[in-house]
Amino acid sequence: MLKHIHKILFFLLIFQPLLGQNDKHQKQIQEIYKLALTEGKAYNWLDHLSNQIGGRLSGSLNAERAVKWGKEELNDLSLDRVFLENVMVPKWVRGNFEYARIITGPGMSMNVPVCALGGSIATPAAGLRAKVIEVKDFEELEALGEEKIKGKFVFYNRAMPADLINTFDAYSKTVDQRSSGAAKAARMGAVGVIVRSMNLRLDDYPHTGNMRYGDLPNKMRIPAAAISTNGAQLLSSMLALNKELYFYLKQDCRNFPDVPSHNVIGEIKGSEFPEEIIVVGGHLDSWDLGDGSHDDGAGIVQSMEVLHLFKKMNYQPKRTIRVVLYMNEENGLRGGTTYAKNAQQNGENHIFALESDSGGFTPRGFSFEANPDQFKQLESWKPYLEPFLVDRFTLGGSGADIGPLRNGKTVLAGLRPDSQRYFDYHHAANDTFDAINKRELELGAAAMTSLIYLVDQFGF
Amino acid sequence: MLKHIHKILFFLLIFQPLLGQNDKHQKQIQEIYKLALTEGKAYNWLDHLSNQIGGRLSGSLNAERAVKWGKEELNDLSLDRVFLENVMVPKWVRGNFEYARIITGPGMSMNVPVCALGGSIATPAAGLRAKVIEVKDFEELEALGEEKIKGKFVFYNRAMPADLINTFDAYSKTVDQRSSGAAKAARMGAVGVIVRSMNLRLDDYPHTGNMRYGDLPNKMRIPAAAISTNGAQLLSSMLALNKELYFYLKQDCRNFPDVPSHNVIGEIKGSEFPEEIIVVGGHLDSWDLGDGSHDDGAGIVQSMEVLHLFKKMNYQPKRTIRVVLYMNEENGLRGGTTYAKNAQQNGENHIFALESDSGGFTPRGFSFEANPDQFKQLESWKPYLEPFLVDRFTLGGSGADIGPLRNGKTVLAGLRPDSQRYFDYHHAANDTFDAINKRELELGAAAMTSLIYLVDQFGF
Repeated sequence: MLKHIHKILFFLLIFQPLLGQNDKHQKQIQEIYKLALTEGKAYNWLDHLSNQIGGRLSGSLNAERAVKWGKEELNDLSLDRVFLENVMVPKWVRGNFEYARIITGPGMSMNVPVCALGGSIATPAAGLRAKVIEVKDFEELEALGEEKIKGKFVFYNRAMPADLINTFDAYSKTVDQRSSGAAKAARMGAVGVIVRSMNLRLDDYPHTGNMRYGDLPNKMRIPAAAISTNGAQLLSSMLALNKELYFYLKQDCRNFPDVPSHNVIGEIKGSEFPEEIIVVGGHLDSWDLGDGSHDDGAGIVQSMEVLHLFKKMNYQPKRTIRVVLYMNEENGLRGGTTYAKNAQQNGENHIFALESDSGGFTPRGFSFEANPDQFKQLESWKPYLEPFLVDRFTLGGSGADIGPLRNGKTVLAGLRPDSQRYFDYHHAANDTFDAINKRELELGAAAMTSLIYLVDQFGF
Repeated sequence: MLKHIHKILFFLLIFQPLLGQNDKHQKQIQEIYKLALTEGKAYNWLDHLSNQIGGRLSGSLNAERAVKWGKEELNDLSLDRVFLENVMVPKWVRGNFEYARIITGPGMSMNVPVCALGGSIATPAAGLRAKVIEVKDFEELEALGEEKIKGKFVFYNRAMPADLINTFDAYSKTVDQRSSGAAKAARMGAVGVIVRSMNLRLDDYPHTGNMRYGDLPNKMRIPAAAISTNGAQLLSSMLALNKELYFYLKQDCRNFPDVPSHNVIGEIKGSEFPEEIIVVGGHLDSWDLGDGSHDDGAGIVQSMEVLHLFKKMNYQPKRTIRVVLYMNEENGLRGGTTYAKNAQQNGENHIFALESDSGGFTPRGFSFEANPDQFKQLESWKPYLEPFLVDRFTLGGSGADIGPLRNGKTVLAGLRPDSQRYFDYHHAANDTFDAINKRELELGAAAMTSLIYLVDQFGF
């Protein structure tokens, strides 16, 4: 048995390099990489989106400027069709101020960096002053009981675990504090929540992100803010010394009725199987604190680059390739759900959808939602991607915006860049263009274009 | 045949996760990672080495401060032995000034960012003013012939090719301009050389690095300087408009006689096979423009971390584990050659040596110099490293400092981090501590510790 394994592995080792030198698909992929790294548009596009437009929360003027820009840029690519898809989106506005202080005695206070969580209500106009109870998780909250919670801020201070290699795993183990911490605490009588930022570093940036009150009645809703990791460490240390200290929070964020916005869509019609649609996309909206360069400006320009590179190489796809710049991933997913609903109503056949929404860092592979036969086929393409170091394929997970296309047949995929730095910037004021490395961004675009090329050539 | 492959691959897929859950070695490696990411010393060590000591070129006071620091820190780890190894090193000093101008007419000039190449002689005290001839490579230089070169600066302007995925490959395709460009040009009558910086980005940092005159007589030697990539683009554009422009260079760098310095060595004695030595190391010297955080402060603190983590976990190695902080990789390799020479004279048996000298970025695997049987054994350990995404093993290449240990038996290895950002910083003033990401640095240390652990457990 072992002997057989060695022979077969030897055969595979010998075979793969040969493939690289003689195969026409390998040559196309080499061309894709060369163009992406030398004549790509992704970096300059992102410069514009980040620096000329900036943060673009759903419902904001900037989000509409981004829609207009995306449509114009896609028009310039001479695609077969560019159009907008109507989407109604939530509108939440951060307002004019947000600040917080730890108060340890009369006239003795320290400012700490905070920001309102997306969807949160404001504090009363005079701000909110209350004692603080620190917890690690919902179990600890429940165990404390209402009487110890009532009238206080609940301070969720569970740090992202540093020892998980994939930082998204660390995120998913802690993000419940942010998304549903306020609703849980409100039901136990808390007056507000302060949530440790989802950030593996110790620094002074508060990280925003969506929170939901769920079915909590309006009058029970309480304000929710994120505190920077350094701020969280400080507050925790001070609480250890003095449980009776007060926290003061003032924020004037506000929810408005839904407003109209758009997904931006462009496509190249397939020459052989035009009814088989391949989607590549990211989300055009971003949080408002930074300029959303990694989340998800990177995914937007990488997705646009796929069609740009195909045009540049004069590649005529067999199947219809569609780029979708989704609106409203961050606080509603309305773009993704609307796109999937319309696709179903129009009887469209999506064979594959790929999303880039994990930052513009060096790509290491892809994750897939696929059945065993589909995954077997995907894995057969690894030799094409191995020379470019993007052959780490995993099963499970794709992207939020394409999730609504899930139907058991359509293969869904996500670009998987190196995750180590992502949460240094995610949803914070430092998610800006200077945190983007040009080559890393371009390598992601090239990896995506290569995968889409293979899907187009071979189908499922 | 295909059916067999599928069965075997299926078996491997099933087997690997089981290994992860039940295997004692896998548990040890998990512990290594946890400690490195939560209680490691690498980042704080590097903070000190970079910010309190700084750039540490061989022969400088800072290099000796680094030796003293390294020895003290190793002493604090309660190793079985810490000692210095005497090494004579070259001493080259940048001097007090280096600057350059493009002169297009009387009173019309523009400054461009330059730095002397390591080992270069000074210009005359009044500077050097001459016309410029631009070439891409030595073939172009030869083709031009002496009469077109004589009395001019040769401007080597071959950019690192952007379309190679491994940036070290791009480096090796261009670094000959820097290392031997001056000697070649001098033999053809040039008065100086200006070399495009080895940098894939367009920016204003000149990147230094070693150059050699070889057997060129002293009186024929000419000054050599690097120009920033933006400066190179500018000079090239201006030459396209006006071939008669002048370049002015002034630098007062100087070579001195060799001075004494040291390798810093610490070891934990093996409990079962103390005569089998496993080396892990990096180089303690750095260029002088930045503080050498990536090149190679990262490798130094990661190597020290291996022994720190073993101590922290109370791991008693079977074989002798030795950390070597090599002196003088950058401009002489005296530390590496001295260490290997002494090892041979002392009849020491080195079974394995691992170097980290490719930056403190997210590790993706290791390269090895090993015979087929040794490599087969190394590959059998991949399942242990796959969960940590450091299982990309390649044959060929290890590290400059450990190269002199090459004897056909000792297995040599190099940590292979993601290479995309390395040449943004390499040998330039921006190779500083702020360019280090804590997690990425720690992951490299954990990967190295895990590999050394496996070598110690299984030997060769």
